[in-house]
Amino acid sequence: MTMAYLDHASASPVEKEVFEAMAPYFMERFGNPSNVYDLGSKVKQVLEEQRGKVAELIGARKEEIIFTSSGAEANNLAIKGVAFARQKKGKHIIVSLIEHHSVLNSARFLERLDFEVTYLPVDANGLVDPLRLLKAITPETILVSIMHANNEIGTIQRIEKISSICKEKGILFHTDAVASVGNIDVDVNELNVDLLSLSGPSLGAPKGTGALYFKKNTRLMPLIHGGIQEDGRRGGTENVAGIIGLGKAAEIAKQTLPEKVQHVKKLRDALVSGIREKIEKVVFTGHPERRLPGHASFCFEAIEGESLVFMLSQHGIYSNTGSACASKALKTSPVLTAIGIPPAVAQGSLVFTINASNSMEEIEYVLEKLPHAVERLRSLSPIWGKQTAAYDEGVCVS
Amino acid sequence: MTMAYLDHASASPVEKEVFEAMAPYFMERFGNPSNVYDLGSKVKQVLEEQRGKVAELIGARKEEIIFTSSGAEANNLAIKGVAFARQKKGKHIIVSLIEHHSVLNSARFLERLDFEVTYLPVDANGLVDPLRLLKAITPETILVSIMHANNEIGTIQRIEKISSICKEKGILFHTDAVASVGNIDVDVNELNVDLLSLSGPSLGAPKGTGALYFKKNTRLMPLIHGGIQEDGRRGGTENVAGIIGLGKAAEIAKQTLPEKVQHVKKLRDALVSGIREKIEKVVFTGHPERRLPGHASFCFEAIEGESLVFMLSQHGIYSNTGSACASKALKTSPVLTAIGIPPAVAQGSLVFTINASNSMEEIEYVLEKLPHAVERLRSLSPIWGKQTAAYDEGVCVS
Repeated sequence: MTMAYLDHASASPVEKEVFEAMAPYFMERFGNPSNVYDLGSKVKQVLEEQRGKVAELIGARKEEIIFTSSGAEANNLAIKGVAFARQKKGKHIIVSLIEHHSVLNSARFLERLDFEVTYLPVDANGLVDPLRLLKAITPETILVSIMHANNEIGTIQRIEKISSICKEKGILFHTDAVASVGNIDVDVNELNVDLLSLSGPSLGAPKGTGALYFKKNTRLMPLIHGGIQEDGRRGGTENVAGIIGLGKAAEIAKQTLPEKVQHVKKLRDALVSGIREKIEKVVFTGHPERRLPGHASFCFEAIEGESLVFMLSQHGIYSNTGSACASKALKTSPVLTAIGIPPAVAQGSLVFTINASNSMEEIEYVLEKLPHAVERLRSLSPIWGKQTAAYDEGVCVS
Repeated sequence: MTMAYLDHASASPVEKEVFEAMAPYFMERFGNPSNVYDLGSKVKQVLEEQRGKVAELIGARKEEIIFTSSGAEANNLAIKGVAFARQKKGKHIIVSLIEHHSVLNSARFLERLDFEVTYLPVDANGLVDPLRLLKAITPETILVSIMHANNEIGTIQRIEKISSICKEKGILFHTDAVASVGNIDVDVNELNVDLLSLSGPSLGAPKGTGALYFKKNTRLMPLIHGGIQEDGRRGGTENVAGIIGLGKAAEIAKQTLPEKVQHVKKLRDALVSGIREKIEKVVFTGHPERRLPGHASFCFEAIEGESLVFMLSQHGIYSNTGSACASKALKTSPVLTAIGIPPAVAQGSLVFTINASNSMEEIEYVLEKLPHAVERLRSLSPIWGKQTAAYDEGVCVS
């Protein structure tokens, strides 16, 4: 069977080089990095080299990286870590409505502890308005967290504008860059951020890895209290093999990124053009230009996204409907709601995330199978043919 | 060079079987367990099988296991998770003075949030007095956390007595079983606990793995907020390969435990007898009987533990001085202080942790090298020969 795996935001296989770098650390080089003797100290040294590689990928310094078990953990550490460290200064936090669950649910947790949270709306393309942010800031505001790129609609925020407002006001700024690091060039100095979360799997590292960048001298309360690991900022024995995989993946990502961006953009554009051409009643979601190069997201009228994902998978085509973490949790995506997609249309959400390993043949295969799948599902739909408001109002692209 | 790796509490190589079980999940079976299609759902199924294996090792039910990235994370989740879920009921917590840093520092964090914490003392063998616990309980007490076995002195608490007091009073009880699971038989029903933390590496799984047992219907606030993973109790993409390693290791541990206990106890007893015979001025720390079978811990007069560990490592003998997470953080171990060892004596702490892979030849090798190392370091010590109080008071075993 032909196969087209186009759900790289959910998961990707690690490169052989990444696996081979990690493999010796399960059996042969098994020492605990905290130990004083050679079996441990050699591992500690290799671990610190990986910290340097991750730092280099995002223009940071080695000592500004904390390894975590996921991008979600990095987001939790950033938000709760700043909140608990600075709560005497103020208890107000600002996030956007389209943040990842790990950010939104961290914010909601803080609300239970008497923090106040402002949830900023976004426009129809998914962009936060910097002026609206400015207005939301109070003397109590200690942290603003706005994601770099959105995993469901691909929109890339104008982070520099947002962060410069925070800088002027003396407020810490965090960005969730899980969807962007490894997919576009990300530099913490250009973005001018205090904290930035990244996920290992998004850049070709194994599951169970992630990191938080925190600008030197940013005070943080640990999320996982414990011993001396990560300079006292995260307890628990380090996931040594995972971190080595993360370092190797960061090194590869750094080298291959420009070529990857070109390649996936070409495939993405072909996919989008093909869909516009071949399928009617489709909303193309997210920003038309300011978007991740390998990311294509749609809503198909009168279709359940989950059914479409499933049907496509029968043809070896792998896609998603919203984010992997939420796909079973929610019926209507809060991100699509935030950009003004009516619930009935949001149901038909489909996301393709393309990686360097994909080929134009795979895109052609999708363009061959997808129209039939859509047609088949619409033929079974009781609402097909009864045009919904979103399409009448011109959000529709076909 | 002959080698005797006797620091298994710090780290162990994983078994070949464990590595081979994990390996396919980095490249071939890379799906995200949250996905609806086969590449993901098959991985989800395997992941759930591992949950069953971990549950079986400790007599729990599958749905009572939350996978974490370490034993430290499990401890943080238990303590903060219960505290934040039950704070309306009361804000008092009880822990012992000899808990792991991940427990103690979680408790100290809660103190900053206006929780009250009682730190229970222990006797000279490291045991908590259940009557003292009873006296410490107030109407505000919502959680008691007492570790099962101590990593530095090997003492195994009378958990059943402690937990039955908590049951009677309607207070949740958590035990940190990181040092015990995989080394002795641990059954959550026999121990009668509400929550129990375990660490992957302690039972032969790779670093970066752990789990929390929580009795059905125990309310917990997540530590890592996020999506639907772990039934909404822990966000972030699962460390799939790590979890599969943990499941396989749990399966092996279940099968091999009785034989392992016999084997390591024999080696440990030979090591202790040999040291008693060959070296003077040694304190044998922890409980003489109620202790982990592969655990031997000492304080050598007039010696710096770290120097001894380092010198032994030059001979290929690997040991520890206190716990791996604290070895660089603290000069005097709070655990040794809690059992009444004076700081000068506590400096000379040495811990051996023996595993199934060790042999009597290795013990003999240690007994050949250790006396020379001790003698050499004492010959360099300015305080050697000036007897310290601890030895005069009869704590000394030699």
